[in-house]
Amino acid sequence: MHEYETDGAKIYAQSFATIRAEADLSRFDPDEEPVVVRMIHAAGLVGLERDVVFSPGMAGAARAALQAGAPILCDARMVSEGITRPRLPADNRILCTLNAPGVPELAAGMGTTRSAAAVELWRDYLAGAVVAIGNAPTALFHLLNMLRDPACPRPAAIIGCPVGFVGAAESKDALMADLPAPALIVRGRLGGSAITVAAINALASRKE
Amino acid sequence: MHEYETDGAKIYAQSFATIRAEADLSRFDPDEEPVVVRMIHAAGLVGLERDVVFSPGMAGAARAALQAGAPILCDARMVSEGITRPRLPADNRILCTLNAPGVPELAAGMGTTRSAAAVELWRDYLAGAVVAIGNAPTALFHLLNMLRDPACPRPAAIIGCPVGFVGAAESKDALMADLPAPALIVRGRLGGSAITVAAINALASRKE
Repeated sequence: MHEYETDGAKIYAQSFATIRAEADLSRFDPDEEPVVVRMIHAAGLVGLERDVVFSPGMAGAARAALQAGAPILCDARMVSEGITRPRLPADNRILCTLNAPGVPELAAGMGTTRSAAAVELWRDYLAGAVVAIGNAPTALFHLLNMLRDPACPRPAAIIGCPVGFVGAAESKDALMADLPAPALIVRGRLGGSAITVAAINALASRKE
Repeated sequence: MHEYETDGAKIYAQSFATIRAEADLSRFDPDEEPVVVRMIHAAGLVGLERDVVFSPGMAGAARAALQAGAPILCDARMVSEGITRPRLPADNRILCTLNAPGVPELAAGMGTTRSAAAVELWRDYLAGAVVAIGNAPTALFHLLNMLRDPACPRPAAIIGCPVGFVGAAESKDALMADLPAPALIVRGRLGGSAITVAAINALASRKE
């Protein structure tokens, strides 16, 4: 029989110790560091930290919003399903509108992707929310375009970590340039639902 | 306003073309190559291909099993929720037992993680199934230990892509050493739910 570590708490502790020994986390402040550690953990990739960028105060703003009960708006079911509910400080509502009724028709009418059209349905929940985009660059681009309108409600913080080869890098650069709210990105092609979920889980609770 | 590509089909085509231009896919056969392309796409990481290993015939065995209606057994909700239903050839059942009633008690009784205990509940569905492990090394280790018993039903194929710093590399090496069924892994620390979902989505349909 294969012998393996079966104690979940020990697995986490040993993983985080390895990450802290190997990764260069010196440029992150104490609010940010545990977030980056969890993102590296989810990716299985030391070196990810080089591309992680927080706007000033993002970690504090996101933590405060979650404590105050902010909803979490997700672009994909892999993000919304991955968030660890017991870590949420205020039983925060988690919303993913990608499969909401009418989204395919809305996308066709808008001439864009379903992921982008689904963001249009966030409007009523956006004020003070924490946004978690871990899949679709088009969702992030559409959110940025919505927020060009001063009348559009402002989220408290945006995690912008879409992944891939078309638009991912560009949408994240656009987020940091526009900065319509405090933001966290992974520059370039890397990103994805697991990294995004890890950031939310770390911002939701300081428990390791 | 930000201009961006809004045609989902074009985004896929351009992404896959970039991957095929940049990645070294020469050692994969035509059954395997589209699977590796989707795994790279999900990770946003050219170079991943160096650590992708198929046992001989795995891609064919997994495709045939899915065509024949095999259930897909997943270790995490991010895997089961990520699979694109319309790509499945036989409306295949997708099962994730992680949150099934009794799993915490079972884990305590077995002295292992919830992820490993949840695999115990796969026994009745394991014959001819496609296994998709994208999160927990302990789930893969426990499955391998179950399959040491010749009386345990055999899956048709195993995607073993747990991620992380404790047990991930070791559990995947153990899978390729035991090889209780045709298997696909990403060696080392890399892996995760998105990569695992991408492999299933590619094995389920040849549509790009």
